[in-house]
Amino acid sequence: MVRKNVARISVPTLRRLPMYHGYLKKAAGQGRAFVSCTHIAAGLHLVPIQVRKDLHSAGIDGKPRVGYEVPVLISSLEKFLGWNNLSKAYLVGAGDLGAALLGYRGFNDQGLDIVATFDNDPRKIGGKIHGKNVYALDKFADLVKRNGVLIGILAVPRGVAQDVAEIMIRARIRAIWNFTSVRLLVPPSIIVQDENLASSLAVLSKRLAQSLQRSPS
Amino acid sequence: MVRKNVARISVPTLRRLPMYHGYLKKAAGQGRAFVSCTHIAAGLHLVPIQVRKDLHSAGIDGKPRVGYEVPVLISSLEKFLGWNNLSKAYLVGAGDLGAALLGYRGFNDQGLDIVATFDNDPRKIGGKIHGKNVYALDKFADLVKRNGVLIGILAVPRGVAQDVAEIMIRARIRAIWNFTSVRLLVPPSIIVQDENLASSLAVLSKRLAQSLQRSPS
Repeated sequence: MVRKNVARISVPTLRRLPMYHGYLKKAAGQGRAFVSCTHIAAGLHLVPIQVRKDLHSAGIDGKPRVGYEVPVLISSLEKFLGWNNLSKAYLVGAGDLGAALLGYRGFNDQGLDIVATFDNDPRKIGGKIHGKNVYALDKFADLVKRNGVLIGILAVPRGVAQDVAEIMIRARIRAIWNFTSVRLLVPPSIIVQDENLASSLAVLSKRLAQSLQRSPS
Repeated sequence: MVRKNVARISVPTLRRLPMYHGYLKKAAGQGRAFVSCTHIAAGLHLVPIQVRKDLHSAGIDGKPRVGYEVPVLISSLEKFLGWNNLSKAYLVGAGDLGAALLGYRGFNDQGLDIVATFDNDPRKIGGKIHGKNVYALDKFADLVKRNGVLIGILAVPRGVAQDVAEIMIRARIRAIWNFTSVRLLVPPSIIVQDENLASSLAVLSKRLAQSLQRSPS
């Protein structure tokens, strides 16, 4: 069901694929065997042609009249998204945000396993958060090497973000999921995925201001 | 310094403006009086023409040879982003993620004041998190009305996301900042800003997989 030669996929399409997966898991739970793009679109408030195009970009095509077999479509999406290979990640920063990320139940289903946390706070080191060990930051490089971890999650205060990113890079982490609002300076070989709440808030505020101009409350 | 007639600004530009603001606050703290696009670009690993265009889209132009006066540029950005008017928000969901959002120090500077939290858990109701009261969810509509709150932050488990969104909408919240991975069904007049970690993780994983194909670890 998955074509071999898949062109580069766009970021908006990629961002929608987990939504389709979530919808399909729910449909499977309700005992559904087949779905059409129209079903998926209706469930997610999208248009059917968008769904068909997105799935096609991921190398997945349905059958005319029949649509998609739910379990096959689920596993094709998981394969495309790489969720069948669980990637290990280390989290640095055992504050509230770190705890929130450790407690987020979705990651495991989505191929991410946050195996441990690192912090500098002696009151946290040696403890556990959501069942995961908290280690001293100076153990980071050794443990990355020993466990073949490729992803570092950065959830530290702004002021130390670049320093901790450099510790990650020296430890040969390949991708940094950056939850600080700092723009990190990294070598081109390192992938940085920014989760910038300040940027999102700017978009939200602007949209709200425009909406209030059109129809004041 | 801010032009009156500003065209619709693009989302990527809007997302970069808070970064410029962060850079400028730092420059101001270091006693800098003037900056050029080249300075800003160098500090944020961008190209100068991008910075000049972004600021121009926000209605802000520098002076030839002189550049931008730092304090004026800061206040122009704050005005454009609406940060001089603090918007009140209510958060629903006093779990780890809710606590992380309440503890995030940047929001106040960025014009967002999370004034209180709501939850259904009797052990949390009546308490405080990061100094903010936790109220029972059934008080939500009354308090929104009394305090003129326009923004609702949704940090509840997936299973109740749509129900809580509907409580927000009935209470006449105008914008929902959605930290669940649920695609909410809302009337067109309601602004929804999705903060979807599953989607971001999909992008990160794909980029990592492509990078590992190019240069295996």
